[in-house]
Amino acid sequence: MKIKVIAPIISDTFMDEMKKEFTGFSYPQTTIDVTNLDYGPASIESEYDEALCVPDFIEKVKQAEADGYDGVISNCFGDPGVKPAREVVDIPVIGPCEASMLFTSTLAKRFSVVTVLPNVVSMISNISKVTGVYHNLASIRYVNIPVLEVHEKEKLKSALLDEMLKAIKEDQAEALILGCTGFMGVASELQMKLTEKGYDIPVVDPGFAATKLLEATISMGVKQSRITYMKPPSKQRVMNTN
Amino acid sequence: MKIKVIAPIISDTFMDEMKKEFTGFSYPQTTIDVTNLDYGPASIESEYDEALCVPDFIEKVKQAEADGYDGVISNCFGDPGVKPAREVVDIPVIGPCEASMLFTSTLAKRFSVVTVLPNVVSMISNISKVTGVYHNLASIRYVNIPVLEVHEKEKLKSALLDEMLKAIKEDQAEALILGCTGFMGVASELQMKLTEKGYDIPVVDPGFAATKLLEATISMGVKQSRITYMKPPSKQRVMNTN
Amino acid sequence: MKIKVIAPIISDTFMDEMKKEFTGFSYPQTTIDVTNLDYGPASIESEYDEALCVPDFIEKVKQAEADGYDGVISNCFGDPGVKPAREVVDIPVIGPCEASMLFTSTLAKRFSVVTVLPNVVSMISNISKVTGVYHNLASIRYVNIPVLEVHEKEKLKSALLDEMLKAIKEDQAEALILGCTGFMGVASELQMKLTEKGYDIPVVDPGFAATKLLEATISMGVKQSRITYMKPPSKQRVMNTN
Amino acid sequence: MKIKVIAPIISDTFMDEMKKEFTGFSYPQTTIDVTNLDYGPASIESEYDEALCVPDFIEKVKQAEADGYDGVISNCFGDPGVKPAREVVDIPVIGPCEASMLFTSTLAKRFSVVTVLPNVVSMISNISKVTGVYHNLASIRYVNIPVLEVHEKEKLKSALLDEMLKAIKEDQAEALILGCTGFMGVASELQMKLTEKGYDIPVVDPGFAATKLLEATISMGVKQSRITYMKPPSKQRVMNTN
Amino acid sequence: MKIKVIAPIISDTFMDEMKKEFTGFSYPQTTIDVTNLDYGPASIESEYDEALCVPDFIEKVKQAEADGYDGVISNCFGDPGVKPAREVVDIPVIGPCEASMLFTSTLAKRFSVVTVLPNVVSMISNISKVTGVYHNLASIRYVNIPVLEVHEKEKLKSALLDEMLKAIKEDQAEALILGCTGFMGVASELQMKLTEKGYDIPVVDPGFAATKLLEATISMGVKQSRITYMKPPSKQRVMNTN
Amino acid sequence: MKIKVIAPIISDTFMDEMKKEFTGFSYPQTTIDVTNLDYGPASIESEYDEALCVPDFIEKVKQAEADGYDGVISNCFGDPGVKPAREVVDIPVIGPCEASMLFTSTLAKRFSVVTVLPNVVSMISNISKVTGVYHNLASIRYVNIPVLEVHEKEKLKSALLDEMLKAIKEDQAEALILGCTGFMGVASELQMKLTEKGYDIPVVDPGFAATKLLEATISMGVKQSRITYMKPPSKQRVMNTN
Repeated sequence: MKIKVIAPIISDTFMDEMKKEFTGFSYPQTTIDVTNLDYGPASIESEYDEALCVPDFIEKVKQAEADGYDGVISNCFGDPGVKPAREVVDIPVIGPCEASMLFTSTLAKRFSVVTVLPNVVSMISNISKVTGVYHNLASIRYVNIPVLEVHEKEKLKSALLDEMLKAIKEDQAEALILGCTGFMGVASELQMKLTEKGYDIPVVDPGFAATKLLEATISMGVKQSRITYMKPPSKQRVMNTN
Repeated sequence: MKIKVIAPIISDTFMDEMKKEFTGFSYPQTTIDVTNLDYGPASIESEYDEALCVPDFIEKVKQAEADGYDGVISNCFGDPGVKPAREVVDIPVIGPCEASMLFTSTLAKRFSVVTVLPNVVSMISNISKVTGVYHNLASIRYVNIPVLEVHEKEKLKSALLDEMLKAIKEDQAEALILGCTGFMGVASELQMKLTEKGYDIPVVDPGFAATKLLEATISMGVKQSRITYMKPPSKQRVMNTN
Repeated sequence: MKIKVIAPIISDTFMDEMKKEFTGFSYPQTTIDVTNLDYGPASIESEYDEALCVPDFIEKVKQAEADGYDGVISNCFGDPGVKPAREVVDIPVIGPCEASMLFTSTLAKRFSVVTVLPNVVSMISNISKVTGVYHNLASIRYVNIPVLEVHEKEKLKSALLDEMLKAIKEDQAEALILGCTGFMGVASELQMKLTEKGYDIPVVDPGFAATKLLEATISMGVKQSRITYMKPPSKQRVMNTN
Repeated sequence: MKIKVIAPIISDTFMDEMKKEFTGFSYPQTTIDVTNLDYGPASIESEYDEALCVPDFIEKVKQAEADGYDGVISNCFGDPGVKPAREVVDIPVIGPCEASMLFTSTLAKRFSVVTVLPNVVSMISNISKVTGVYHNLASIRYVNIPVLEVHEKEKLKSALLDEMLKAIKEDQAEALILGCTGFMGVASELQMKLTEKGYDIPVVDPGFAATKLLEATISMGVKQSRITYMKPPSKQRVMNTN
Repeated sequence: MKIKVIAPIISDTFMDEMKKEFTGFSYPQTTIDVTNLDYGPASIESEYDEALCVPDFIEKVKQAEADGYDGVISNCFGDPGVKPAREVVDIPVIGPCEASMLFTSTLAKRFSVVTVLPNVVSMISNISKVTGVYHNLASIRYVNIPVLEVHEKEKLKSALLDEMLKAIKEDQAEALILGCTGFMGVASELQMKLTEKGYDIPVVDPGFAATKLLEATISMGVKQSRITYMKPPSKQRVMNTN
Repeated sequence: MKIKVIAPIISDTFMDEMKKEFTGFSYPQTTIDVTNLDYGPASIESEYDEALCVPDFIEKVKQAEADGYDGVISNCFGDPGVKPAREVVDIPVIGPCEASMLFTSTLAKRFSVVTVLPNVVSMISNISKVTGVYHNLASIRYVNIPVLEVHEKEKLKSALLDEMLKAIKEDQAEALILGCTGFMGVASELQMKLTEKGYDIPVVDPGFAATKLLEATISMGVKQSRITYMKPPSKQRVMNTN
């Protein structure tokens, strides 16, 4: 099984870490390849950034299908481009936010998301409404660290732990989702730290959830419903992005 | 008050009709100008078309703000680009779907939407969920006429009337929303025909609702909340669209 | 266009201020006239007060229709009499609570209401449920100042600002609605003060929202659905109020 | 225990049947007295009728409290005056619609209401939303017989049975509520007829449900919450009704 | 009328107090008998305890029906066995959690539950979702006292009062439900203490609510819907419990 | 990774087919073992059957944990015993109904379930409410074939196809879930037949969804939240089942 993970940003800084990370998430028989965009934002921290990344993201999804990939992950917690891409290609396309919210709903009846910046709270809340699990969402908190600084892992983990504890104590969270796919390699340690503090609850890495859900979809021989996601009619579409 | 109505498509066929239509919707003291896009699809009939139109739509919104417009309408029932544009500019940006669903909620406790094609049903349903009025929505029906053929007015009106009657009788609709901004100049006649058949209920034109809500917003001196729609952080954004 | 604003109370103290206020809310081509009741309570601060004002309010609405008015506003945040009046007359009848909740839903995904007294919290909550936007409502707070003392503007504004800040910080409000139509002439200043404190979010005056929504409804040539609000059957109705 | 059943209408035609009916609903130790209004409509078939009956209904509730009654039933399926009366008196006040919807929610996961006329469907739907059980409500159907003709029992029962069968087959109702307190003495027979047709499901008489819930409330020594229903502040209230 | 109250636990310690308590809840013409289980847990403080008590609970319900009882109460706030028992017998079976949540919904628009231990919070929350009144539930709090220690009445009452006050002030509860059927004989005193502190709101004893709702159901001649709760098909069922 | 699939029934007829089926669902590195119960019903077609199977099911789950299994599937679409078992053991426990509803929510915005008998419709509906995806559920249909006759594959497939087409056309289903884990080996063929009829939408096998979600959970190193599913306190528990 071949999966293409597309970082919907122009920066290629995280490509190696991303490939290693997703390879770790996947089963041995899965091949993970990663790519980033030619056109779009350096990172995604707003609806605006999402909007800018989507046209080239869809091109990369089409290319992945042409190259024989069995499925695609949009590697950003805002799930940019997932819905239009599902219309365009015949392979499954998974978004980490939707995947982790649905996955976590099997582990706990309420969960909180801890994300990067206040700017993306509305996007995440809207995804929970469209997916139908808004009432399972205890809260959306943020560490107030820009995406491009999340590689400072100690600072990040400390800030995440603080917000996670607040989510548990103040918002009655019973499980936690990392609300940025840039929060790589920290889920297990945070889960362990919470357990040490008496909260033996899951910390879900959204990239991990996306990978497992995509592998599941491919294995099962299913893909997006063509009633929900119909093929776009043919027409003239003038783009700069080619 | 100066309002810019942006058709998020590359076709300029409807520009004159659109200008006339929106001028008719607005108060005498409102100036309506219209524009279409340089890049994007010929019409919007999918999430894919939406995705492609948004980057240039945002450019046009920025330009409208720079040109001194007091507000913008995204003239497509899928409300493309409304959320990112609200982040980027300091003038209100209104989408016809959201506007008409909220407006119609003052007139009836349940309404149906009749749109063009089955392809856009999910988009419209999702907007109702994000806006919070999903449970006021009785059904979304469609006439199965592509956007670029909706100028055949008699055929269109007949198909709309059929679906409206089904919405009333089978889905318990108590008011109706035209689910495509290309359905121009037909709302009043359809409302009259329904009244003749014993259903004295409103037929809401989404462009009309959007215009009135935008005029209201501008008059009131308010705009989108900066907590819901924060300004995007500065960063590198590589686009072809310049 | 001629609009009648009916204060559903017997006190005529605020008539001049009200006429000036609503004239300021309206477009130049709109004529605003105001009236109060002959029978009913001195102010509305309970379901009981609402119940007492409705019969004469409906009489005044009928009179407004007979006098050629194009629409009516029930000028109290509890929207008293709006639903029965919609049945009785053929002109639109708007309530400030419903109007401002729906209007604000275009500006922010969550809003709080700040009202006068704890007594009216249930009424307002119930309106949000019937209108269908309960889950957009972050909280209902109150300044604990009786309606007839809200003319002490400095005290009022200070109390409103305090509760608005709590709504933002504690209840995650992203926009604010003034929850009493007696809170006249304070919205803009409060919005400015919030902006100075870093919260650039809308403060919606419910009378303003009602006026704009009513003007929109009249312009559009629509009124309440006769399926939702059917004409009352003829019968004997014995009233003292005539 | 002394219960006052108030028919919120001026007609006294049904007083004897009503007294007999409610006495049959109650425990032997309960005394049932009935009354009707001096001012108000001949029957309740609209929001308008409701509005007109409430002021005198509240007077009658106050009188009932003064006369030593332990609780009051507003004997109309629209629950008119229940909320304001709860504010005013210190004895419980029960509405048949709310009571029967909550009671039936213990017997089945979904129920339909069959009422008199299409005119009252919105009122009933709104009560289910305010009470919080809207999603338990399968449908609201009507026999299209005016309130004052419901004494033609055979015609009524036949029409009710037809609509009940449609509710079961088309709307997936799993229990049924009679949606008018004028549908006296028919619940058991309809339940038997449904059972004969293979549907062994409850048919709930709303007056019965109201009586049992009121007896329960009085026995338990509880009444309406004074946070939900606060005492109305003192003030001038000018009424004709005295 | 004969009611069997079944404590779904093996301990018979509380049988006398329980019989006295429920006899006090019931009307004079009602006979209350109580029993406990032969197999199952000593108390119910988890889904696990619930699961273990249900098979013998159902046997006891069958026995009650065979013995001529008119209805059964499952005397634990987790409502164990209520749904399967409703399938098996032809007499009504009531659970205290469902009964008290629906009953309290007539008294206040929002209520909190105060229960024994954090272990049962999810069970209670799930019942509110299945019953359909989840959005009426302000919060579920707990005193952190195991079921078998709740007979220390002073300690219990003090802890309950503390949590009730927090529910009112922090969670906007407007009524309170005792969230354990072992909290016997404390509701009235707690209601009085809350009233003394300025909160004149109901404190509902779940056993009381269950008794009154069961008496009501029996009086009315209704029982569980056979569409919701169909009779189990015949088949081999191998059990140890006989 | 070692997974134990427990059929919560006493019949061992399907053990071989089940082992083959689940082995086919799983990744090569997963070992699947199956078992059935010593005590309980021959099949599960009611809440009653569920109740009877749970005590021994929990014993089997404990045994699986003791035997070194990494996770357990409760192989019945009613998810019997899943919640109590999650409390008792430290390995993940997955139910096919919850798993398939959450999984399918990534593929379509609305889905229908087609199950065996009307008897289990309420159970399935309740699971959707507790899981939080009730509003994604278009309908629950049934083929009216008892569990022990579902091995007549041609009859079964024909009946399933009929109901699936009705779900699509009448209930607006956009994806389908097989609502019984006894419907083995039919999902792909049904999906193909629907595609031939113009409905290219997923047909989800609940056992497949459960297997993939359990493998995902184990791979990720997470398990059920200990706030949602706390460890049961120690106490006397008298059972026959040992």
